[in-house]
Amino acid sequence: MPRVSSDHLQARRRQILDGSRACFARHGYEGATVRRLEEATGLSRGAIFHHFKDKESLFLALAEDDAERMADVVAQQGLVQVMRDLLSDPHGRQGSVPGAEWLGTRLEVSRRLRTDAEFRSRWAQRSEQLTAATRERLRRQRRSGNLRDDVDVDVLTSYLELVLEGLVSHLAMGFPADDLDPVLDLVEESVRRHRNG
Amino acid sequence: MPRVSSDHLQARRRQILDGSRACFARHGYEGATVRRLEEATGLSRGAIFHHFKDKESLFLALAEDDAERMADVVAQQGLVQVMRDLLSDPHGRQGSVPGAEWLGTRLEVSRRLRTDAEFRSRWAQRSEQLTAATRERLRRQRRSGNLRDDVDVDVLTSYLELVLEGLVSHLAMGFPADDLDPVLDLVEESVRRHRNG
Repeated sequence: MPRVSSDHLQARRRQILDGSRACFARHGYEGATVRRLEEATGLSRGAIFHHFKDKESLFLALAEDDAERMADVVAQQGLVQVMRDLLSDPHGRQGSVPGAEWLGTRLEVSRRLRTDAEFRSRWAQRSEQLTAATRERLRRQRRSGNLRDDVDVDVLTSYLELVLEGLVSHLAMGFPADDLDPVLDLVEESVRRHRNG
Repeated sequence: MPRVSSDHLQARRRQILDGSRACFARHGYEGATVRRLEEATGLSRGAIFHHFKDKESLFLALAEDDAERMADVVAQQGLVQVMRDLLSDPHGRQGSVPGAEWLGTRLEVSRRLRTDAEFRSRWAQRSEQLTAATRERLRRQRRSGNLRDDVDVDVLTSYLELVLEGLVSHLAMGFPADDLDPVLDLVEESVRRHRNG
């Protein structure tokens, strides 16, 4: 029964990713011990490392999973909407907001990128999805006439990613975010076509 | 000779701040041991802690000193220029670029804000200078007609600070910065008055 078996594998993999997400977010990479990962996922270390070679591979799979889900939101609603979701529910408490669940993972990725050169090279190969989704969304917006056409799409993509990075850092440092909605309005407006321009 | 004595104290204080800046940037707060601070400043621990109560006070004085110097650049040239300086010489190697020397301290401040609640409350009282300098500069720009007048100055200030935070984070993670000049052009343009708008 290969189909059932594959479904089962997928479900188990999902269980591990979802359980370990909260664990890495709360304890950081080093603090997410195998014992804590067992508790968080409800599975034994044998079961966890049957699906993922080691903790590093599990963390990278998680970060990749989050990046895919963010890329989906970006494709449908744009990167500014991802930022708005993050503002409205930074710690993903509502559960229904897909944009914000990844903050913990993202912070841990940021931290390791700063401190771990080997991780940086492994991550570089996997971090292109979000950029690609953002760029593709902007291209579609330009074709439908909603995007300003005097600035290169690559520049607009880098701009939005830089603001996202600032927002992630702002939240990570515990600064208040309740006054940032008009800032995101300004960001959104600066990539839009100025109809009366 | 109180004047000479005061000059001497100031010079010694400056020597300690400048020496320890590189030490904190290289080793991080925890890694900047008293022995390393002695080596970096060329002074004994007795001399160092005659001027600063403890390592925490030294680090806060350093961060405050950097914030003052950044605020001076902001007052004269604006926050976007601070960001351009950072791009052109992120690690302050040219020495002559005042905007960039603070990156190491700033990164360490960011890290401690994320991980140390007590530091966060001590820092909050000291971090207003840059915001105040940015706001004041924008107000002057508005009075001289260079700033857009359809968005509140506080929103523009938060916007520029958010982009700066993104840039600091971007550089901290070792991402390439050579394509960000046109992004900063876009940021600058988004706060300017649109003359043909």
